[in-house]
Amino acid sequence: MAAPVREALHFPQLSISQIDPYIPKPGVRHPNKPYGRPHVTLTFATSLDSQLSLVPGAQTALSGPESKAMTHYLRSKHDAILIGVGTAEADNPSLNCRFEGVGGYGGEGLQGQPRPVVIDPRGRWRFTAECKVLKLARGGKGKAPWIFTMAPIDDERRELLESVGGQVIVAGPQPSTRRLSWGYILDELERRDIESAMIEGGGAVINDLLSPRNIRFVDTVIVTIAPTWLGQGGVQVCPKERVENGAKVPVARLKDVRWVPLGDDVVLCGLAPRD
Amino acid sequence: MAAPVREALHFPQLSISQIDPYIPKPGVRHPNKPYGRPHVTLTFATSLDSQLSLVPGAQTALSGPESKAMTHYLRSKHDAILIGVGTAEADNPSLNCRFEGVGGYGGEGLQGQPRPVVIDPRGRWRFTAECKVLKLARGGKGKAPWIFTMAPIDDERRELLESVGGQVIVAGPQPSTRRLSWGYILDELERRDIESAMIEGGGAVINDLLSPRNIRFVDTVIVTIAPTWLGQGGVQVCPKERVENGAKVPVARLKDVRWVPLGDDVVLCGLAPRD
Repeated sequence: MAAPVREALHFPQLSISQIDPYIPKPGVRHPNKPYGRPHVTLTFATSLDSQLSLVPGAQTALSGPESKAMTHYLRSKHDAILIGVGTAEADNPSLNCRFEGVGGYGGEGLQGQPRPVVIDPRGRWRFTAECKVLKLARGGKGKAPWIFTMAPIDDERRELLESVGGQVIVAGPQPSTRRLSWGYILDELERRDIESAMIEGGGAVINDLLSPRNIRFVDTVIVTIAPTWLGQGGVQVCPKERVENGAKVPVARLKDVRWVPLGDDVVLCGLAPRD
Repeated sequence: MAAPVREALHFPQLSISQIDPYIPKPGVRHPNKPYGRPHVTLTFATSLDSQLSLVPGAQTALSGPESKAMTHYLRSKHDAILIGVGTAEADNPSLNCRFEGVGGYGGEGLQGQPRPVVIDPRGRWRFTAECKVLKLARGGKGKAPWIFTMAPIDDERRELLESVGGQVIVAGPQPSTRRLSWGYILDELERRDIESAMIEGGGAVINDLLSPRNIRFVDTVIVTIAPTWLGQGGVQVCPKERVENGAKVPVARLKDVRWVPLGDDVVLCGLAPRD
């Protein structure tokens, strides 16, 4: 048996067996999604008051080390990780997988590494060669990002991105001038052989996906909850209201739910509802 | 063994054993509270987006039947249940204990029945003889309520309350003209031999108790979370922000946490922090 690889994360087999029913299996279509688009796993960590961070534009350490290991296990099981440009700007995220055994962390090549995808409708992500995600791609420890945008990206950034193997995907006309439609994004990913995508944040992306008109794009949800209240003024997960026959009704109730205690946190796994 | 009593609720022994470390024991002071005031358990149920109900002034069924049984088990273990006047008005709550074996539900007299306490600073609770809590008191299935107020209560309501064994407690001058201080309420309860109080809601009361200046009055927290998002516009648990040395910090992180899956919900048990 090889010695543990430095930096690689380990997630106990017991926890894996509890979460595995909720993650996509390569080549097997989820019952929620028998047709073409990729399986979508929505995953994030909140406080008890449903907040992702204390203040907009800053990262808050909420969940414990076990949750971090779980996130990297999940990343190893998805073809792509999606985030919004706000998170890319605020967190300088790595967006690779550091789970033991994947490419760069004990495994060959980039095997098991997901494709980072940044949703950036107005092309405002000011990445440089020093961004973690670009450095990891250059070092063979992660794939290079794809950027979805409606705005042109300047040549300098495009060339930088392409030099590490990344790509700019410029969308045609969209139903909204401010957002890319999820149908479009998922269709484009499917065309690029992405069978499963894990959507990690931030608040704008999550609330948009949980909204009544978009929840249908989500297959499974994996939410970590930490036993803390952050208090007013943070970035909150709270989708737009749903009104039916003139009365407010819950936006989405998960099905086939499982709660998995993990350190001080709990992990909620469930299937998104299908009307 | 007696036949099960109609209406009485049952809570499985396994769940009891998981939750028992967090409930007060008669005559035993909680380590958080070696001095005089009652042990305070803050308990409520929220959605994933930390909401108690879809719209203000209306009750939303969030948690499942197991959570209801747990609530009644908890009520059997506390001397008093506190709610705010908004909840008394909106829900017409019973505020008694229907756990099997307590007085009125298989047990003798009012043994195991908690004292309902309504916090009503401006004396606006329009109760009548037909309110559930008064009917139950009249029928020997629950204790009569105490009302804490700063405003005079008209003679008619006072006499109605006293006719079933209830009491109006009129507070002297308070630090705020809009709220009763928790120190005052808990001191008055202690004087009336209440050793433990379970605070159930609603939103105004919970957010006030979780605020940075009041969290010290809370000993244990038992929160049920249901796997649903209600969406914007409901009654939300989200306390006032806490600022230390000019920076926002989490308001409260629970200690000695346990997550107990219960039906489709999860129950979070923890100790309130002590600075």
